[in-house]
Amino acid sequence: MQKITVVGAGHVGATAAMRLAGREVAREVVLVDIVEGLASGKALDQWESAPVEATDTRLTGTTEYGPTEGSDIYVVTGGLARKPGMSRADLVAKNAEIITDISENIASHSPDSIVIMVTNPLDVMAYVAKEVTGFPRERVMGMAGVLDTARFRSFIAAELDVSVQDVQALVLGGHGDSMVPLVSSVTVGGIPVTELMERSRLEEIVDRTRKAGGEIVDLLGDGSAYFAPSAAVAEMCESIARDQKRVLPCAAWVQGEYGLEDLFLGVPCKLGRGGVEEIFEVDLDADEQSALDASAAEVRDTMDQVDV
Amino acid sequence: MQKITVVGAGHVGATAAMRLAGREVAREVVLVDIVEGLASGKALDQWESAPVEATDTRLTGTTEYGPTEGSDIYVVTGGLARKPGMSRADLVAKNAEIITDISENIASHSPDSIVIMVTNPLDVMAYVAKEVTGFPRERVMGMAGVLDTARFRSFIAAELDVSVQDVQALVLGGHGDSMVPLVSSVTVGGIPVTELMERSRLEEIVDRTRKAGGEIVDLLGDGSAYFAPSAAVAEMCESIARDQKRVLPCAAWVQGEYGLEDLFLGVPCKLGRGGVEEIFEVDLDADEQSALDASAAEVRDTMDQVDV
Amino acid sequence: MQKITVVGAGHVGATAAMRLAGREVAREVVLVDIVEGLASGKALDQWESAPVEATDTRLTGTTEYGPTEGSDIYVVTGGLARKPGMSRADLVAKNAEIITDISENIASHSPDSIVIMVTNPLDVMAYVAKEVTGFPRERVMGMAGVLDTARFRSFIAAELDVSVQDVQALVLGGHGDSMVPLVSSVTVGGIPVTELMERSRLEEIVDRTRKAGGEIVDLLGDGSAYFAPSAAVAEMCESIARDQKRVLPCAAWVQGEYGLEDLFLGVPCKLGRGGVEEIFEVDLDADEQSALDASAAEVRDTMDQVDV
Amino acid sequence: MQKITVVGAGHVGATAAMRLAGREVAREVVLVDIVEGLASGKALDQWESAPVEATDTRLTGTTEYGPTEGSDIYVVTGGLARKPGMSRADLVAKNAEIITDISENIASHSPDSIVIMVTNPLDVMAYVAKEVTGFPRERVMGMAGVLDTARFRSFIAAELDVSVQDVQALVLGGHGDSMVPLVSSVTVGGIPVTELMERSRLEEIVDRTRKAGGEIVDLLGDGSAYFAPSAAVAEMCESIARDQKRVLPCAAWVQGEYGLEDLFLGVPCKLGRGGVEEIFEVDLDADEQSALDASAAEVRDTMDQVDV
Repeated sequence: MQKITVVGAGHVGATAAMRLAGREVAREVVLVDIVEGLASGKALDQWESAPVEATDTRLTGTTEYGPTEGSDIYVVTGGLARKPGMSRADLVAKNAEIITDISENIASHSPDSIVIMVTNPLDVMAYVAKEVTGFPRERVMGMAGVLDTARFRSFIAAELDVSVQDVQALVLGGHGDSMVPLVSSVTVGGIPVTELMERSRLEEIVDRTRKAGGEIVDLLGDGSAYFAPSAAVAEMCESIARDQKRVLPCAAWVQGEYGLEDLFLGVPCKLGRGGVEEIFEVDLDADEQSALDASAAEVRDTMDQVDV
Repeated sequence: MQKITVVGAGHVGATAAMRLAGREVAREVVLVDIVEGLASGKALDQWESAPVEATDTRLTGTTEYGPTEGSDIYVVTGGLARKPGMSRADLVAKNAEIITDISENIASHSPDSIVIMVTNPLDVMAYVAKEVTGFPRERVMGMAGVLDTARFRSFIAAELDVSVQDVQALVLGGHGDSMVPLVSSVTVGGIPVTELMERSRLEEIVDRTRKAGGEIVDLLGDGSAYFAPSAAVAEMCESIARDQKRVLPCAAWVQGEYGLEDLFLGVPCKLGRGGVEEIFEVDLDADEQSALDASAAEVRDTMDQVDV
Repeated sequence: MQKITVVGAGHVGATAAMRLAGREVAREVVLVDIVEGLASGKALDQWESAPVEATDTRLTGTTEYGPTEGSDIYVVTGGLARKPGMSRADLVAKNAEIITDISENIASHSPDSIVIMVTNPLDVMAYVAKEVTGFPRERVMGMAGVLDTARFRSFIAAELDVSVQDVQALVLGGHGDSMVPLVSSVTVGGIPVTELMERSRLEEIVDRTRKAGGEIVDLLGDGSAYFAPSAAVAEMCESIARDQKRVLPCAAWVQGEYGLEDLFLGVPCKLGRGGVEEIFEVDLDADEQSALDASAAEVRDTMDQVDV
Repeated sequence: MQKITVVGAGHVGATAAMRLAGREVAREVVLVDIVEGLASGKALDQWESAPVEATDTRLTGTTEYGPTEGSDIYVVTGGLARKPGMSRADLVAKNAEIITDISENIASHSPDSIVIMVTNPLDVMAYVAKEVTGFPRERVMGMAGVLDTARFRSFIAAELDVSVQDVQALVLGGHGDSMVPLVSSVTVGGIPVTELMERSRLEEIVDRTRKAGGEIVDLLGDGSAYFAPSAAVAEMCESIARDQKRVLPCAAWVQGEYGLEDLFLGVPCKLGRGGVEEIFEVDLDADEQSALDASAAEVRDTMDQVDV
């Protein structure tokens, strides 16, 4: 792949750019941030590690969109985090504005690119990006499910003292509280997890997964998670860049799948060179379907707050 | 990990040694073969690739067991392949003799080592190694399930045009014809495969997996598979060396698990620094249990032919 | 390798811990920081990325040294950065105090460990660690030369538009202003760089390398480099853990080498399981030797300010 | 990169294809061999290892050139090895015929591709490929120098007991006996090797390097090196595919460089997406230049034997 742009040089963005360059996922990685010097400084720091890391991908930083011209993928991490005294509605409105600006730049500089939204609330910000760019649904998606699933898997692996590589799981729906983990299909080396763990313990792990973002915030005191979110972003980019056709849970624009339409929702997708090449429909039981519906309703509520 | 020895410098053995050295799974890898020069030549060829591959593991070749002293793992690939006119019983007898000799050398040079048997019929040869070395069951195992499962996964991935990384499966029982694939627990990105593919098509894939070794032999005309078998060996060694606690199907000495005892049988194991650290019991339906019993009976028949 | 501890969960420390876990350099990585929650939060964030990164190394965070017991390596990044209004002498005194405390903990919890000092001024802090722990010179070293060399190489690679992997260089002496780059032995794919670039351009690059840390600080506005420093730390740890015997420039306690003794100075070292297994003496011309002497004098001045 | 074709499914070709697929250097790798089933068998074996190796590159085998259509690179390993009783001239004539046929297929199926010649005598076979395809010199090269240099480096690393990663060297000229190692520019961690080793010992190592191919043949009895040759091929392909701009010694068509023209000769090249993007001229002393001239004369002698 020729070029990937990461918008926003905060911790998630900068670390994602570092991972993409470190693995040569693209020939060139561009980091954009409006703060003068920030993206350039992080990019230079990464470039100075290239001889040690044995990677030849050049990471460059900029405050402008010109150097992003012709990018194959845009990872969007720009936007505000909620500040004390700021209402959730204010946050949504402010971020929608920022994402609108970013999306206009994406559409004009790289009309054939794929957008991966990370800025929260991501289902809604993905919607803003889709509307503003006018891109087809294959080329706009959000990152949440890979992260939630990774957290779920890491907790199960720790509990059973087995390799994280052998725990498979799938989390649908929204990010955080409204996520819908498909507990019955979690496997460990191909063994249903329900044969290895008490249902009640599993429920505790599901609950911890829902609140995993907050757990990190509480520990750090000041700041939030970025190692795992950036790893999730890199995995999605790699599947697209190398056309691996990974089956990963992403926020995708559903149009009838799972009985829902015209919103972004976390569902299993095939990610390849074309973006979201396929959306898989999983058989849900009644509880799972109703949790997914609730998750969708929540997304739609927030969608109504933005004006695009 | 300090040292891994691979016994037998045929294609499976030499390629396994190359993979282990290439990934620095151990500080030192020793390749042993009775044919003068063969192991040394392959080892030197691998060492000459080290600067390009950026690995510092030194692979050395030898005809003696002295240099294997203090090995942490022995991968045993030595033995004969069936020649035209040779009965299966003759092959078993001859290989049992070879494995007895190798096992005596292992026990005397590295009494604390772990043995991974690859020589066929591997369930029986693992039994010979266990008897001759007197090692506890944690430290003797056979490689078959990782290979069978990999083949099964690769066929499903190709059929669905999805990443091999997201297909999870589990194959129990013996190698080849008597293998017992647990079809109901195969998942693709966490989705039950039965929701993505017709049962009849899945059965064809199971059937192809059973005969996959023969398919390669037929294509090559002269020779048999070694890329995938050596990759399976390397994965098992890596899990032990790095104490990853992978959950992988291995031939392990069952003692009551699955209602069977005192034989080697393909079952899911936790592989760590201690070898087979745990054997997992999966709930089987009646068909699966009876297939596993049949597989066990077949192994026991061959066991009766060897005298250890 | 069993266990590596990183002291200090700031950006350099946390990113180094992330890299060490991500590559399974050790079975276990422990991150220590006196700030409640900080190390635990970063460690948990990293662990949640493990399923995506396919690594089974467990990173844990703590405020105590108990969990670091039996570590093979300590990477020390703890200490203060210079604040406005703080004199350099105050900084040295304060950090010497912090490093003394850390060193006592290292000596009592892991008396056979190897110490890699990153806290600045690192030559002097390495001296404090050596004195307090009483460790032999093989087991105390400082990180600077790998970073300075990496920066030098990255600038040359960019200038010539060639792979960073093929630019080889060696920087001796102190970190930053007093570094002594051996320009005459820089090669590009085995070609002396002096055949590919004007001497004057090369001098500009040397000058930029000297000031490279400051360049990042100026760009970031608030904060300093951590991608490249953490990569340098990880490379040193990997060479020790996997006994690769890399020849890397490290701050080592010279005892007659280069005509200097009883101080830490950047010199080429062989890094293996035993720590600094060998110090190489390179022929220097008169200018290089006098620059190295000046670098040593500077280190000795600061050493005199600390009381250990 | 989209597609790489390897022509010839012998050990060098099949192992090169395996390495290219294993590292996802291209989206698709095609292995061609006229022997029915051979390429398909090796390719299938590799594909069955993909789930274990976590690679999604699909390797396929074929006896036809149709499926190679649109390849970005062709690695050519097809041809005969010298048989007892066969004169060197017969071998050259026979291989020239085979390479002519392969080259016609390359030109017609993938007119924009890059050709990497491995078949011996490679300088002459590269010439045949260049003439038959009509490709510009940027897009036809031969593999020898990376292999010779790797062997030289591995011997020096073993002698000094240091990491292979830190030994840098450059070998020019022909493959084997007529190679021209630039001893004075060999460095170890940036230190001139002449400061670390006696000149006489270095000469012995040079001599061993010259005969390294024969050393492997003698050890194996039946067969020749393929681990290191295939690694060298993979490194060249990776530099082109990922546009790394590695500076590697390759057989390139010189046109005045080093005072020589209109023949393939081992010289340091920049390998990027465009193929041989630059040829570097190194200052040679009189002995080195005369050795290079002799090497060129030898190549030209053999060129005269082929009729293209």
